[in-house]
Amino acid sequence: MSDLLERANQLDFLKDFPEGPLDAYRKQATFNWKVMTLVMEAENVLKFKHKVWSTLENDPLFAPPPTKRSLLEERGAILEQVFRLQELNFLGERSGDIGDPMLTNVLNVCLGQVDWSLATRRSVTFDFFTNAVRGQAALENHFDALEAAYKMKLIGCVALTEIGHGTNTRGMKTRATYDPQQQKFILHCPDFEAAKCWAANMGKTATHAFVMAQLYTPDGDCHGLHGFVIPIRDPRTMLTYPGVTIFDMGEKIGLNGLDNGVMIFDNYAVSRESLLSKTGSITPDGRYVSAYKDPNKRFGASLGNLSAARIGIVQFCSANMFTALTIAIRYSAVRRQFGNPGELELPVIEYQMQQWRLFPYLAASYVMKFVGDQLYQNFVTFAMSQFNPDISKDELATMGIEMHVLSSTAKPITSWLARDAIQECREACGGHGYLSAAGIGKLRNDNDANCTYEGDNNVLLQQASNWLITVWSNPKRHEMRDSMPLNTLSFLANHSNGISQQTFQSQTLQDVLNPKSLLEAYKWLVQWLLQSSSEKFHSNLQSGKDSFTARNDSQVYNARTLSIAFFEHYALDRFWFGLCSQQELPQDIRQVLTNLFLLYGYWSLEKHLAILYQGGYATGPRAADLIRQAILELCGSIKGDAVALVDAVSPPDFVLNSALGKSDGMVYKNLYLAMSQTPAAFERTSDWKEISKRLKANL
Amino acid sequence: MSDLLERANQLDFLKDFPEGPLDAYRKQATFNWKVMTLVMEAENVLKFKHKVWSTLENDPLFAPPPTKRSLLEERGAILEQVFRLQELNFLGERSGDIGDPMLTNVLNVCLGQVDWSLATRRSVTFDFFTNAVRGQAALENHFDALEAAYKMKLIGCVALTEIGHGTNTRGMKTRATYDPQQQKFILHCPDFEAAKCWAANMGKTATHAFVMAQLYTPDGDCHGLHGFVIPIRDPRTMLTYPGVTIFDMGEKIGLNGLDNGVMIFDNYAVSRESLLSKTGSITPDGRYVSAYKDPNKRFGASLGNLSAARIGIVQFCSANMFTALTIAIRYSAVRRQFGNPGELELPVIEYQMQQWRLFPYLAASYVMKFVGDQLYQNFVTFAMSQFNPDISKDELATMGIEMHVLSSTAKPITSWLARDAIQECREACGGHGYLSAAGIGKLRNDNDANCTYEGDNNVLLQQASNWLITVWSNPKRHEMRDSMPLNTLSFLANHSNGISQQTFQSQTLQDVLNPKSLLEAYKWLVQWLLQSSSEKFHSNLQSGKDSFTARNDSQVYNARTLSIAFFEHYALDRFWFGLCSQQELPQDIRQVLTNLFLLYGYWSLEKHLAILYQGGYATGPRAADLIRQAILELCGSIKGDAVALVDAVSPPDFVLNSALGKSDGMVYKNLYLAMSQTPAAFERTSDWKEISKRLKANL
Repeated sequence: MSDLLERANQLDFLKDFPEGPLDAYRKQATFNWKVMTLVMEAENVLKFKHKVWSTLENDPLFAPPPTKRSLLEERGAILEQVFRLQELNFLGERSGDIGDPMLTNVLNVCLGQVDWSLATRRSVTFDFFTNAVRGQAALENHFDALEAAYKMKLIGCVALTEIGHGTNTRGMKTRATYDPQQQKFILHCPDFEAAKCWAANMGKTATHAFVMAQLYTPDGDCHGLHGFVIPIRDPRTMLTYPGVTIFDMGEKIGLNGLDNGVMIFDNYAVSRESLLSKTGSITPDGRYVSAYKDPNKRFGASLGNLSAARIGIVQFCSANMFTALTIAIRYSAVRRQFGNPGELELPVIEYQMQQWRLFPYLAASYVMKFVGDQLYQNFVTFAMSQFNPDISKDELATMGIEMHVLSSTAKPITSWLARDAIQECREACGGHGYLSAAGIGKLRNDNDANCTYEGDNNVLLQQASNWLITVWSNPKRHEMRDSMPLNTLSFLANHSNGISQQTFQSQTLQDVLNPKSLLEAYKWLVQWLLQSSSEKFHSNLQSGKDSFTARNDSQVYNARTLSIAFFEHYALDRFWFGLCSQQELPQDIRQVLTNLFLLYGYWSLEKHLAILYQGGYATGPRAADLIRQAILELCGSIKGDAVALVDAVSPPDFVLNSALGKSDGMVYKNLYLAMSQTPAAFERTSDWKEISKRLKANL
Repeated sequence: MSDLLERANQLDFLKDFPEGPLDAYRKQATFNWKVMTLVMEAENVLKFKHKVWSTLENDPLFAPPPTKRSLLEERGAILEQVFRLQELNFLGERSGDIGDPMLTNVLNVCLGQVDWSLATRRSVTFDFFTNAVRGQAALENHFDALEAAYKMKLIGCVALTEIGHGTNTRGMKTRATYDPQQQKFILHCPDFEAAKCWAANMGKTATHAFVMAQLYTPDGDCHGLHGFVIPIRDPRTMLTYPGVTIFDMGEKIGLNGLDNGVMIFDNYAVSRESLLSKTGSITPDGRYVSAYKDPNKRFGASLGNLSAARIGIVQFCSANMFTALTIAIRYSAVRRQFGNPGELELPVIEYQMQQWRLFPYLAASYVMKFVGDQLYQNFVTFAMSQFNPDISKDELATMGIEMHVLSSTAKPITSWLARDAIQECREACGGHGYLSAAGIGKLRNDNDANCTYEGDNNVLLQQASNWLITVWSNPKRHEMRDSMPLNTLSFLANHSNGISQQTFQSQTLQDVLNPKSLLEAYKWLVQWLLQSSSEKFHSNLQSGKDSFTARNDSQVYNARTLSIAFFEHYALDRFWFGLCSQQELPQDIRQVLTNLFLLYGYWSLEKHLAILYQGGYATGPRAADLIRQAILELCGSIKGDAVALVDAVSPPDFVLNSALGKSDGMVYKNLYLAMSQTPAAFERTSDWKEISKRLKANL
């Protein structure tokens, strides 16, 4: 018995599944799902997740509601749960000790798989507000506010976005003007577009806000965006203070347990100490004193470390894919429809079409789970390095750029993958997938926000490609490549100039299924796109466009695709070298991980197939034929493993909360139970007398 | 002044839009939006739509709810509205006179743009149930039931789908066994999988059901699926009759105004006359008498005419695209973000990326609106032809096949287009698009069902390709082509064998922008896919696969793509010859329609670009470069027309009900109004005392 299997068997919460309709496929698996669980998640993380989930399952406060709640009920229920989380103290928030930083995101994912409103509201309350304040705190009262937030003596919110400015944060218009007479800052929104909005907790519950505002000194100078921590509601009455108007943003597509609000300041005076003064402060008489000389650096410092939230989203999205795919794959293994005449109908997972619709996303979810966790680990290292005197400013800057480029590509790609995976799962479950009892609709509506917040996907992709294009024009780019701790430039070929002259060499399916072929094709693709995007940008400049327009007009089919292919290659490279090829893993596990690697890789590459031809990497029908054949072969190979692959990463039934995806595979019984538990499911409608009267009147 | 403009100006409900932030773009339009309105919709249809919408706007019963309703409230409100529709009698349902058949779908679209639950529930009540009964009615009591349904003396539902069988209708298990003793049919569901489900109205309100069940005679013979019309609830008490158990399916992703139900028969006896006996009947002593000899033909006849519902969905989807694009394009013309330093920020519609994200869907919505309406017209002709003795059985059969193939490809393609367009619009509106006040979320959730009902999209595509592959192996296919009234085979080249030997000829952008180039490329594409799908199918057979498996294993990358490309070509061909090239249209209108034709066409073709290379139609970078360049050029050309293009097809503000899309373009004012009208938006939360207490306790 392998070491991993032994360890897996010791984790008594990794329980065998009940016998039932899924057995046929569970028995086909080429590997032990418990071993895979341990490969994909560290033992302490598994234990932590089990602790969180079983605590929630045993607490009636977290029981899923039997029917949809009204907006206000939803808000109230989630806030109540956040208060309980503070008591449960999974991470030690109460002590102000952040504990194992890796576990913060694990907790968010655990809670998110139960309800993303809960996870997000916990995050805003304990992470976002405190991180924002901590990043710029300098005075004792700032640290007091931090401690109060952890203990929920206050409820914080983060007021950054304005009605008129989201993505372009520098364009924000809320002002904080220092008045030396009162020794106070006067916060003011010149118009409705300057109103702060989208902040969760703000709508109904926050007593304090972290606010970004343009700092003006009495001389009329604007010193750019600065952070403030200010009281907004009286905790004794929960009424806003005079000068602060707040209203609720109302119902949203999803995440309705969050009370996102709009806040308008009307000459609201706050103390001089409200300014978070790490990066700059005001003397009592109104002079601005900054630790930074370059206002751009100050801006960067005050907004910095945004990568963490984006990497968090990568982790959320792979978890959402796991949830959706668990539902769709288990259902597909049980649902039978059509077949050869006279024979038992086939489980729909037997259809190549169904495999092709679902398995590439299954593969993607494994790749992104691994890469997302690794990126988060990298981020923690990066964050800690900022306090390590042995690490030079240059090294830090390099890591910072890598974090930014990787998170700005990883977040769009995984949020779109999750969006599409969830939708495909919904459709692959047919009509029953449209029932709330299936659990897919709410997931889709909540996941949708991931495409937008923490940076619009397309804007983030542009930020990443901007940097890549700069690198391309740097003659020393190969030296750069070798000095990057996170291997961000691993796609660069060894020769020093232009792009690889390689072409598609595979003659057989076996050649294609060699991982090297896939990685080589991707390296060529990224380089080609980098060259073409760079050329497009420069030819735009030469045609007289300004640099802003030249960039904008080189996105579609060029820089945007570049950023996508760049991260696909990065993720594949990491998944291959960091996991599939690890010799200490059991052979059966490596084989199935390699299948997932190849499937995600070729399925993604296939979307760029035209570029392989356009750029001369491929000619004639062979490349298209072989690549597509490989995808279908891989789907077939994965079929027998698919149920075990979702078993290994699925949350427990309580968390999944899906009639179609429950681990016992008793789809129809579970549908019956779910529907019959709907309130008043069997009762006649309460307005029956009215209906009866109307029918009679029409006689 | 052109004739069209004169007529447009006489329609006083086509009002000029209020002045405001959209003026800048409205002034850039190269055509008059009112003329375009008249080009896209017949005058009587416009008047009818105006009558319906203004009636609804003036009736408080149809006012949009200020906040989301509970499931039961939602059901009740929609039913109330359906009763009102019966009184309003827009189509003359009360008289049992179906009136202008074209207007039925117009009414559905009108209502659907207000609320798809309303449209669907009206349809089920007045169209589905009555059509199902009428199609097979033979006895007086059947026609009585029809009349009662039109007058809402009864409420009907259509019970076809079972828990275990949706797509494969032949696999249904509900039985109707004739008992000569009682002279009754005994309806019975042998298990839960045989329970009837998904029928709207069934959950709480239907008094009668059209039921499909396997008919068994006393000798134990099964005569296949037959239709029955039976009472299920006592209209005096609204309780189900003994032997009938019904429960509500609970909350769904969307369409929650429909009370979809599950119905289980437990030896429920119904009269012999319940059998809809047009295709077959039972003698009192239990002998089966059929009008058809071939059971397959009987099956076809009893299920027949399913195309109508699919074509209806095509029309729904283009309307949904219009709604979503009106919101996103108007918002994009007002929303400013980033810009050159020191200059006013740019409206986001100025970004090539934003144009490329939205305009191809705008083009698609125009194409699909035109083609969907034309298909519906074709269907009406086809349906009428069934009563025309001058039209031969063979002609009818040909038209029937064309309707089936066209509706089975049009429905998947437009429902996916609408799905993707709505999602892109949501994301293109950024965070504000995530607010319910934007109006996109509900649209997405309701539209989602279009991908599944009336036939799963992928299954429908397979049905169409099955027929196309048969045609391909028919040596007389070119003769077939010329005899098809709906031009279904117009992609076939003139020479008699194999596929066209043409290649990509365009040397310049101008060449590409010649409509002929686009249509030729598509003809080649469809033929190549037909050949490759046919080869794949036959090679699967030769490798020993049975025909069922051989078909299934030739879908991905072959037959599925074939069906998609087939309908894309069909739609383009129709839009070009049926509209853009019509010489009686004003030149400016033809120009902008041609731009839409080219943009939708090349954007769709670009997704098949790899095939053009794989099959040798294109070589080297030229084709990819020119096609992509054309798409971006067309986006740029359409920019100045985009607002007018949505103005021409947008529903009125009351129907649109979107803060971002309102025709005055006052986005921020409308957002403010929408949010501040949310109930209790400004009030402190009702549980404030509890929160205050908890905060204090943590001190």
